[in-house]
This record gives sequence, structure tokens and C-alpha cells, in this order.
Amino acid sequence: MSTDLMPNRFTPGEAQISTRESELIARRDSVLGASYRLQYRRPVHFVRGEGMWLFDPDGRPYLDFYNNVPSLGHCHPEINAAMAEQASRISANTRYLEPRLVDYAERLVATFPQELNRVVFTCTGSESNDLALRIARLASGSEGVIVSSHAYHGTSAATAMVSPNLGDAIKLSPAVRMVSLHGPSGIPERQAAAFFEEQVRSAIADLNRRGIGIAALLIDTIFSSDGVWVDPPGFIAGGVKAVQEAGGLVIADEVQPGFGRTGTHMWGFGRHEVVPDLVTLGKPMGNGFPIGAVVGRKAPMDRFGATARYSNTFGGNTVGIAAADAVLTILHRDRIPEHAHAMGERLKMGLEHLAKLHGGIRGIRNAGLFFGIDIGLDGTREASRRAMALEIVNLVRENGILISTTGANEDTLKVRPPLICQAEHVDRFLEAMESAIRKVVA
Amino acid sequence: MSTDLMPNRFTPGEAQISTRESELIARRDSVLGASYRLQYRRPVHFVRGEGMWLFDPDGRPYLDFYNNVPSLGHCHPEINAAMAEQASRISANTRYLEPRLVDYAERLVATFPQELNRVVFTCTGSESNDLALRIARLASGSEGVIVSSHAYHGTSAATAMVSPNLGDAIKLSPAVRMVSLHGPSGIPERQAAAFFEEQVRSAIADLNRRGIGIAALLIDTIFSSDGVWVDPPGFIAGGVKAVQEAGGLVIADEVQPGFGRTGTHMWGFGRHEVVPDLVTLGKPMGNGFPIGAVVGRKAPMDRFGATARYSNTFGGNTVGIAAADAVLTILHRDRIPEHAHAMGERLKMGLEHLAKLHGGIRGIRNAGLFFGIDIGLDGTREASRRAMALEIVNLVRENGILISTTGANEDTLKVRPPLICQAEHVDRFLEAMESAIRKVVA
Repeated sequence: MSTDLMPNRFTPGEAQISTRESELIARRDSVLGASYRLQYRRPVHFVRGEGMWLFDPDGRPYLDFYNNVPSLGHCHPEINAAMAEQASRISANTRYLEPRLVDYAERLVATFPQELNRVVFTCTGSESNDLALRIARLASGSEGVIVSSHAYHGTSAATAMVSPNLGDAIKLSPAVRMVSLHGPSGIPERQAAAFFEEQVRSAIADLNRRGIGIAALLIDTIFSSDGVWVDPPGFIAGGVKAVQEAGGLVIADEVQPGFGRTGTHMWGFGRHEVVPDLVTLGKPMGNGFPIGAVVGRKAPMDRFGATARYSNTFGGNTVGIAAADAVLTILHRDRIPEHAHAMGERLKMGLEHLAKLHGGIRGIRNAGLFFGIDIGLDGTREASRRAMALEIVNLVRENGILISTTGANEDTLKVRPPLICQAEHVDRFLEAMESAIRKVVA
Repeated sequence: MSTDLMPNRFTPGEAQISTRESELIARRDSVLGASYRLQYRRPVHFVRGEGMWLFDPDGRPYLDFYNNVPSLGHCHPEINAAMAEQASRISANTRYLEPRLVDYAERLVATFPQELNRVVFTCTGSESNDLALRIARLASGSEGVIVSSHAYHGTSAATAMVSPNLGDAIKLSPAVRMVSLHGPSGIPERQAAAFFEEQVRSAIADLNRRGIGIAALLIDTIFSSDGVWVDPPGFIAGGVKAVQEAGGLVIADEVQPGFGRTGTHMWGFGRHEVVPDLVTLGKPMGNGFPIGAVVGRKAPMDRFGATARYSNTFGGNTVGIAAADAVLTILHRDRIPEHAHAMGERLKMGLEHLAKLHGGIRGIRNAGLFFGIDIGLDGTREASRRAMALEIVNLVRENGILISTTGANEDTLKVRPPLICQAEHVDRFLEAMESAIRKVVA
């Protein structure tokens, strides 16, 4: 893979920044080292957050159209109050009886199809995917894992080994197989389902042929790091069925699409009308508090629990549960998924209009408020499309709006506003996009 | 391993519990499933925490002599205020500039020997150990890991595979080698250092012979799940040197001993007068907020960071940093390590007195406020020693104090009070211990 793995980042000397910021960056580099990278040519620094907005030290507002952790808005007073109240009373671990843990677990599981009736709590999406792989491997007795070509499923050793998106420096597991998606392969949408199923079946056959066997199909239900591939709804169904028939488990990675982002459904797999065996949760679950979970079918979950004694010190602690409980209450009460759907429609129409007016937008894909916007003029090469996408991200940032890039070629804009965004925010984003596109296509 | 892996747990029908609790447990089992186990014959349920104390729904106080997450006490008002204040202002991720992240990283690193000058933040101790293994394997180019016979290093796939304490149901990595400790092997303390070094050298030789090579020696600096083996200080030094000379990295797992628990030192490895290559942090770091870290030498940390693009969504988020920052401030300001040393001395003297008076205590080991107390009468068999330890834990629980068991045979009491405990709490615990021991030896 020759693509820069994180093109939208700060590189010293590339852009003018203040002395104060340069000094802070030098100290940062000295103590945090090479693992830590800053987004944008000119890094951002925020001292206050409120709903859709972040404010820099000079009081300049930035509209957040990127972060999917504070999915109900930055510094949500109701969620913060729930956390503070719980923290002042008791923060119990799961080896003590705690009604709130059980209440929330029941409420969470009630949002899933009835076959998925067990939950285990973790602290991060990476821990959720790592645990789901352990469960699938124990239940299937096999090691093989099928993922998409540019999948990213986490930072732990086991999840990094099934995350081709991390690039050549990270060794892939000998037991992982990658399947392509129709869009990047140039396959038309009407053949998407057959194409996906055929590749999954062929991966299963190869894993069996080598004695590795199939443990899991692990997929984003919105293929995010592949470039936000979402349509047609249901195109994954044949592949899902093939894996389940072969004795493997289907793991729906809902760390990004989950909790209403897809608009019409609480969970991305619902949009595809499939029922996975395990579902992994993370990012927006606590609107910022580190909490994740694996929800799944009784048989594999209990088989694992009975033999493997999973115990996560912080997973399911009462303060995290209080945050997640407040999030779920607000999602239901304020009909957030429906709202995300409506705002997603408005944003899509606006983008389609822009594409017609100015060119420079080659494709628009979304489910609810998760958008992939392919950038580039017809006939331009990969490198120039990537440069154009990066230019737009940075122009928009200078104009006070946060987005970034994704996809195999990093020439797709990744746009994921908090789900509480309103028409005025959508319109403000569209204005900034129009201005940026006019500049890059000029 | 025939030992029950978690003897101190609730088993339905074993003890009388209220209808309300039975109903809650039934609901809990139904939604959380087999992974979740409750401690004590009669599970505990707390509705309020304050300092050293937890209170059940009837207002009955329990003295916490077990939990090492709320190391500065339950529901600490100062730490909670720091979290709430930060959460109300901004919760930024590490891809944005944030002075507080850099300030805390510098303050944290300043508590380490100067060679250890890089830090990467995680959310849990498991994530810290998982990341440290990835760093060590990349830096060494080898796969082999040496751990103690009953080590426990985490819940992720990679850490579980080097955690023999999890029992036979979890497959160990083909690249892991276990070394015994002198105490459980019947080796006298004066031969402890030579015994440890010899075993480490022999494990390295075996790993090399098989072409696996040595990536890391991964050890608790208080060998906790092995039964709290701490003395003599420095006994690990020869093994540490052997690994470093062979090109492997030494990972000090400070998830349990770190942040002042050992009394005289902030970090357990300091007590052994060695400098590891990587140090992993977790549990008490945020006094309850899920935050962990890997601190280490520049070369392996930057090599990993430059190639592997580690990005942890919640790791280093500003609210977790605010909690950790408050913890570090209190540790320094209130001279918590010195206080833990003094309280540890008082507790040790009291236990030695009890042992002389009543028998039933075969050994007492501690560093600061981390105690292992071996239970059993001379000549009793393993099963009866285990039963006796379990009986003491449950008698003490009925008397309103929380402790549990550890060690290969689970006949060692694990006692880890929050570090703020005072003489009155130590004395209260000793009274309860005396009463329990008199009953079990009678």
C-alpha cells in the first residue's frame, strides 16, 4: 500500500503556526513520541465544547462534522450530570450486585433482535472486537477470520492482525482473508450481493482447504475505512448466510454505525436485514466515557463465559453504565435515529445539488448521518484525487468545520456529524463545502 | 490445574440470601450470562461509597481492604470534581492539541527513571499489556514471552495467551515460557535471585533453540496472582539483565503495584532496583476512571509509533487525564507512598502477632499495603488450606470487611486496602481477622 496511512495530519514546517503552538507541539512530541499524530495541516486546539460546536483559545467556533464519540453533542449536561451523580454515590465493579448494571443491560438488549440476548461489557471498541474474536474462535473451534479489504477493527494485537487498513508495517494473521467490496471493484450495485457472497464462499473454501477453518466474518455494517460503502441494503446477506452455514460466527462491528447513526435503525445490521451472532459496540455508547460491549447469542456467549472467566476491571462499572444509560434514554426520548435520518436526507440532497453545480464530487454514499463523499474530477489520477480531498478537508477546517478523509485511496471525505445536528448546521457545512470545492476545481 | 479458578464466589443455593437479591441475581444471570461471577458466598451490594467504606442498602458499613482501583478512597470528592469540571468544559481526543495531556504526560514521566521518557495512553491495564507486547515483539523481532507460573496479565486475546492463571480452558501461546518463583518452589530466600535468573536463562535458551527468540520478560513487580511474592527486594535483577542482554525487553506490569502501593516506591520495579524497558499502568491510575498507559524507553516506543500508527479513541481523552492528574497531585501532596509504608508496617506487625497467638497463618508477605497471607495449619493438605482461606474471607465479609484469595492454591489471602487507610482501619481489620482465625482453627 503506497498511500500515506494518515494523510490528514500535521507535518512540521508545512503550515504557519503560532510560536505558542509550536512550543506545545515540541513538548508533546518529546513526551508522547511517534505514536501520536495531530490532525489537519494546522492542528486544532479546543478549550470548550457545546453541542455541535468546539471553541479554540481565541473563542473561534468550529462546527464538528466528524466526531462520532460525542454523538449526542459535546459536553452534554444531562449525561455529565448522570455521571457526576453516580460518581458521587458509588462506582461499583461487576462482582458486586448492582441493579443499575442489570437494568441497563436489559434495556440495551431490548434494542436487539430477540436472538441476541446476552451482553458483556468492555471499555473500548477494540476490547469489544478482541473479545468477540475470542468468543467466535472458542465457539467455532476454528481460527479463520474474513474481513473487508481495508477493514480496521482495533488496536489490540489480535484486532490489529485482522485490520489490513493499518498498513504493511502490521503483520496480518495467517488466518485472515480479505474480501473486496463491489464499489471499489467496479461491480454495479445490482451485482453487489452476489459478488460479496461469492468472495466470502471462496474465502471459506480456502480457509477450510488449509485446515484453518472459519471462525468469523467480522464486518462494519457500514464499511467505514473502506470508504463508507453502504448500499444496496441487504447486500451482505448472502455472505452472512454462507458463514453461518459453514459453522462460523458473524460479528457485526457496530462501533461506528451503532446507536442510531444509520438513521432508520438503531444498528447498522438492521438496515441489511440480517441477524449476526455477535455485535460489538464502542465509541458513542457513553458519549465520551470509555465503555463498550459485546451483545450476542446465548450459546457462544455462555460457552465462552463458562470456560474462560472473562473479567474486565472497569467494564460495566457503574459510572460508565450511568453514562450509557443516559445516552440510551436520550436516543429513545428524542427519537434521535429518526432525526438522523431526516438530517441525512437534507445533507444528501444538498451534496447532490453541489455535485451537479460544480463537479469535483464523484460519488455520495450515506446511511443516516454517516457519509462518504468521493472527491476528484473525471479522469484525474489517484494521487491528485487524494490531494484534492486533503485540500478540501483543510479548506473546510480553515472555514471552521471539522471533517476528514477515508477509503483505500484516502480520496473520500468522511463526514459524521453528531446526531443532534440541525438544518442550520447542515446548511453551514454545505456552504463551506461549496466554497472549498469551487476553489479546488477552479 | 484442579483448583477452582475463582473459589471466592457466589453459588446459588449455598447460602441464604433475600428474595429481592435472588430476583436480581436471576435477572442478572439471564442478561449477563456465564462470564459474570459474584464475589462471596453471600454477594455484596453497595449503594454508597466514601473513603475506606462501602454501605449496603440497609446502611451497613463495609470496610474495603480489597479494591485497588479506588486507591485514594471511594467517591473521592476532589477527583470527582476534577472530572466533572473537565467534562463540562471539553473532552478532547489526542489528535487535537491539548496542553493538559502534555502537562500530565510530563508529570507522569517525571516519576520514572530518566531512561523511561515516553508514554502512550490506553484505557485499561489489559490494553497496556497488550500494547507493550506489540512494542516488544516489533522491537525485538521475536515472539517469545517469559511470565511467572501463575501470571495474569489481561483479558485481551494476546494477554490471555500469556496468562497461565486463567486456567486450562485458555490456550497458552506456543511462544510463552513460565518460570517458577522461589517461594512456591521451596527455595530459600537467599537463593531466590540465582533461582529466578537460572530459570529465565534456561527459558531464553529454549526459545532461541526453537527459533522463537525472546521478545519480553513480562512480570508483576509484586507477583500478585502467584500469591504476592515480593522478597527479597532485587531478586529479579539477574533475570532482568539476562533478558536485556539477550535482546528482549523487560516489561514491568505495574497495574497492581504501581502508584505507591508498595510503600517506599512509586513503582514496584524501584523496590527491586532495576530499570525495565516498558512499564504498564492501569487500575488505580484514575481512581476509577478507565485509564492506563505504557511508559518506556524512546527507542522501542518510537520504533513502534513510527510504523504502527497506534490510535486509541478514548486513550488520553481529557476527562481521563483530569482524573489521573488529580490522582498524581494527591499522591505527591499527601505523601501517600510513605503513608502506605507506615500503615503496611503496622498491619504486618499486627498479623505477625496474630500468627504467634493463634496459628493458622503460615506466612505473611507484603510490600507497603499489598499483602499475601498464607492460611493453613501445619501439615494440612492443599484442599483444606484452601477451604480455610475461603472460610476466613467469608467470615470477615460477614463481619463487614472485604478481602479475597489468591495464589496457585488460592489459600493465600489477598489484602489490598485503599492507600488512605488509617491506624483505626488496620486495627479494625486485625480484630476481624483474629475473630475469623479463632473460629477456623478451633
